[in-house]
Amino acid sequence: MLLLHRAVAPGLQQAYRLKSTPARLCIRACCTNASFQPQRSSFTFSGGNSSTRRWRVMGTLLGLGAVLACHDQQCRASQESPRRYTREEVKSHCSPETGVWVTLGSEVFDITEFVDIHPGGASKLMLAAGGPLEPFWALYAVHNQPHVREILAQYKIGELSPDDKAPSILKTSDPYMDDPIRHSALKVNTQCPFNAEPPPELLTENYITPNPIFFTRNHLPVPNVDPDTYRLNVVGPPGGQSLCLSLDDLYQFPKHEITVTLQCAGNRRSEMTQFKEVRGLEWSLGAISTARWAGARLCDVLAQAGHQLCETEAHVCFEGLDSDPTGTAYGASIPLARAMDPEAEVLLAYEMNGQPLPRDHGFPVRVVVPGVVGARHVKWLGKVSVEPEESFSHWQRRDYKGFSPSVDWDTVDFDSAPSIQELPIQSAITQPKEGEIIGSGEVTVKGYAWSGGGRAVVRVDVSLDGGLTWQVAELEGEEQRARKAWAWRLWHLQAPLPAGIKELNIVCKAVDESYNVQPDTVAPIWNLRGVLNNAWHRVHVHVAP
Amino acid sequence: MLLLHRAVAPGLQQAYRLKSTPARLCIRACCTNASFQPQRSSFTFSGGNSSTRRWRVMGTLLGLGAVLACHDQQCRASQESPRRYTREEVKSHCSPETGVWVTLGSEVFDITEFVDIHPGGASKLMLAAGGPLEPFWALYAVHNQPHVREILAQYKIGELSPDDKAPSILKTSDPYMDDPIRHSALKVNTQCPFNAEPPPELLTENYITPNPIFFTRNHLPVPNVDPDTYRLNVVGPPGGQSLCLSLDDLYQFPKHEITVTLQCAGNRRSEMTQFKEVRGLEWSLGAISTARWAGARLCDVLAQAGHQLCETEAHVCFEGLDSDPTGTAYGASIPLARAMDPEAEVLLAYEMNGQPLPRDHGFPVRVVVPGVVGARHVKWLGKVSVEPEESFSHWQRRDYKGFSPSVDWDTVDFDSAPSIQELPIQSAITQPKEGEIIGSGEVTVKGYAWSGGGRAVVRVDVSLDGGLTWQVAELEGEEQRARKAWAWRLWHLQAPLPAGIKELNIVCKAVDESYNVQPDTVAPIWNLRGVLNNAWHRVHVHVAP
Repeated sequence: MLLLHRAVAPGLQQAYRLKSTPARLCIRACCTNASFQPQRSSFTFSGGNSSTRRWRVMGTLLGLGAVLACHDQQCRASQESPRRYTREEVKSHCSPETGVWVTLGSEVFDITEFVDIHPGGASKLMLAAGGPLEPFWALYAVHNQPHVREILAQYKIGELSPDDKAPSILKTSDPYMDDPIRHSALKVNTQCPFNAEPPPELLTENYITPNPIFFTRNHLPVPNVDPDTYRLNVVGPPGGQSLCLSLDDLYQFPKHEITVTLQCAGNRRSEMTQFKEVRGLEWSLGAISTARWAGARLCDVLAQAGHQLCETEAHVCFEGLDSDPTGTAYGASIPLARAMDPEAEVLLAYEMNGQPLPRDHGFPVRVVVPGVVGARHVKWLGKVSVEPEESFSHWQRRDYKGFSPSVDWDTVDFDSAPSIQELPIQSAITQPKEGEIIGSGEVTVKGYAWSGGGRAVVRVDVSLDGGLTWQVAELEGEEQRARKAWAWRLWHLQAPLPAGIKELNIVCKAVDESYNVQPDTVAPIWNLRGVLNNAWHRVHVHVAP
Repeated sequence: MLLLHRAVAPGLQQAYRLKSTPARLCIRACCTNASFQPQRSSFTFSGGNSSTRRWRVMGTLLGLGAVLACHDQQCRASQESPRRYTREEVKSHCSPETGVWVTLGSEVFDITEFVDIHPGGASKLMLAAGGPLEPFWALYAVHNQPHVREILAQYKIGELSPDDKAPSILKTSDPYMDDPIRHSALKVNTQCPFNAEPPPELLTENYITPNPIFFTRNHLPVPNVDPDTYRLNVVGPPGGQSLCLSLDDLYQFPKHEITVTLQCAGNRRSEMTQFKEVRGLEWSLGAISTARWAGARLCDVLAQAGHQLCETEAHVCFEGLDSDPTGTAYGASIPLARAMDPEAEVLLAYEMNGQPLPRDHGFPVRVVVPGVVGARHVKWLGKVSVEPEESFSHWQRRDYKGFSPSVDWDTVDFDSAPSIQELPIQSAITQPKEGEIIGSGEVTVKGYAWSGGGRAVVRVDVSLDGGLTWQVAELEGEEQRARKAWAWRLWHLQAPLPAGIKELNIVCKAVDESYNVQPDTVAPIWNLRGVLNNAWHRVHVHVAP
């Protein structure tokens, strides 16, 4: 009987440490809690224990390839001659009461005990109850990995009857097959959904990032929206009327154009991983880009729908047209105060660098929230509404939040931290690259600096000796507007090198107009999701003799 | 011939290192610049060379007690039998052309060569030209120190005629004699002007700091304003009319009440000094306090005067009624955008914690700029105007700015850095105290955390092992308003101690709602004025066996 329980945490931690162990790892866990009910009557997203258990497994699952635990019976099942089931029999096992069965290829699995510890949540997994996993695994490509199959294997109870293997209703079409073609220069983190960043050497070549290499952060397949039939649903206030805006309707609002830098909360996560494993895409320093955006101001559209700034707390919720098989759209929200502030310049953008938005960047309409984390710039925007609470989206409430280094997947309480909105001061070195051999005599260091909330970058300090002494870099381009500095500053430093020097430990750190600075090191800001890494950026290079 | 010149910089640096040398130190410096003109036709505040020279001397003067240089003739003068001058003769030496003479007691000094390198600026010193120094030294009490008298001694050229020693026009009354009486608990940094902070053990006893121990930062003597005749001059827009508001007039505006924390830019400067000497008051961690302020909103008063928000950059300049002998008032400015934003809640406050403002805190009216450095909260407010540029006040343009650690008094360019407005995230430990011996078993750590710009404190991390591991402190009191979190959060952590532990390296660091964090160490944010120290606060304590 498989039970994942607080009592097995040490075992999981052990499994974690054994990450690289190639052999299959079975940990027996037994129930030590007398009140445990094997027959759960419902699968809930909330609730302390199940939640804790789920996060624990999610952390382990996505962080390592080892197997967590095994069900004695199921371990045996995979060794004996398989029992046969019809598709109808499988279909009848679609609830906690009947047991939850699924198929993959011709194999049948009883995952009843696993549902509640499914890293993606019980409700997502229940969508596959009684049927094949393929349509879901095609969407959530993270499942297509050996260690996930290994976990599943432990739940195998038999095989489909030979004459019952090809269900007529099964659609296995790849939901990503319609994704756009991308530029080959992009450094791909995941193909499905597509997540990629420009290489450092291209990133700061231009103040404006060319559309084809603008970093891309997709959570789901890219919808293919017909601009002629596209409608944006702007929900009106209670008692008021909603707007249903075509693209032409949006064009009727005053066109507002601003240069804005977008940054993913996970930018520079790979440096955090070097200190200690985290869960998330392995972004290098390129999950940040800058474009000239044009569109209607959100405050104008909200005003037309009859919304006003109110005294009580309120949030503008956005829903994308990208959705998962349940129809759940990508979603996020920002405070109403920001949305309604003309000075905050929040856009419903339909142009990026003078072109219609590329599909990867939200065609035909995306939100652009200057100074705020990329996750709130909802793409393929379908719906806007004003709510008393933040978006209930997973990405608003159970992701994109920062925690103390002491918080792990056993102890995390997502409700205890605010959703990331404005980002902190950030800078990074794009030239030279880590490990490069540079010429003697002189070094040129280049990079970017940016701060959230419209706070201008007032200075970038560069050190060549690991932070002992500093030189002030030259900021490039035009001055930023105070309090409305939405776009980055590129910078460079040209410095002579002492004769005979063999290596440089180059460091950069920036200061914003609120005199916020970057922290010295990664460890004290480490967090389990690997977001918000704005420690000094360090590059070690060798100097040619 | 005394010449202070770039070429003597190494000598000055040497003098700096010899700070503690008790013996009188004479450095001969000679002119190496052929274009040098001994007879200067004017004393200017601007101009690269004279400015550079002045800052260099200021840094040296205020940082050490050694003598910079000596004028051969003057050195001799002090050894020979003194020459006698009449007060009329002295009076006739009051310009660069005639030479600049001053008296102190019965002694006469030719300070012509010193004027341009006077740390407080040439124009301030020229006010004393041809007359006695006493009235000015009484105001700027920093002069009453042995090393300043020592410098002056080198310029002595003789003495006043014995029958000409008591000028009938001389007023030597102490401008600080009318300062209010203060609470004895305050830790005094300077008596004249009065600068003092509450001791740590009282600072976080109450969320609201009691008026008598609210930290005090005065730049000049405290004016004694008659509330009946008090008038606030609000300059109208071009072509418009100015307002001349009595206190009763101010009471007619809607009364607005908010809790705001004020922090001096120099809070925690003493920790910076430990790393490397800086110029400024030796604030510990108490240059921060919180009060409930009430008054008229600045935006309402400006609107009544006919001011509007404009597209072009503009600033609201404030002048205090505290002034130096030239009549120059303390002054500062904030951007018009902040002043006109009702959400920014800038006040013309006449109440502090339900009482009329105490005299030390600006009676009868002071500015309160939530989220902004204390220096802009101008006290004893006399005048408000809207200008295209920032205040020309010394404290706006030549002080209260942040620089790279690489910038020293030789290289500083005050125009290169923005005036400090919003302050960065800050936190400090008020209990236990440095070096304390605490009981075993458990430790209670207490402190405050605050961020500028209305950014709420979302978390305080506390480490007992110097930053290796962290625990999340409990934030006290009510939740802060998002984007309008003007007041600090007090916090505490109660943690068990391992048996046998002998010492704790307690560290705290806070995070604000923009996820800005404090830097790990002081050295990389060190700056020549010692402002903006928000590095992790560290307290080392011993544990009783």
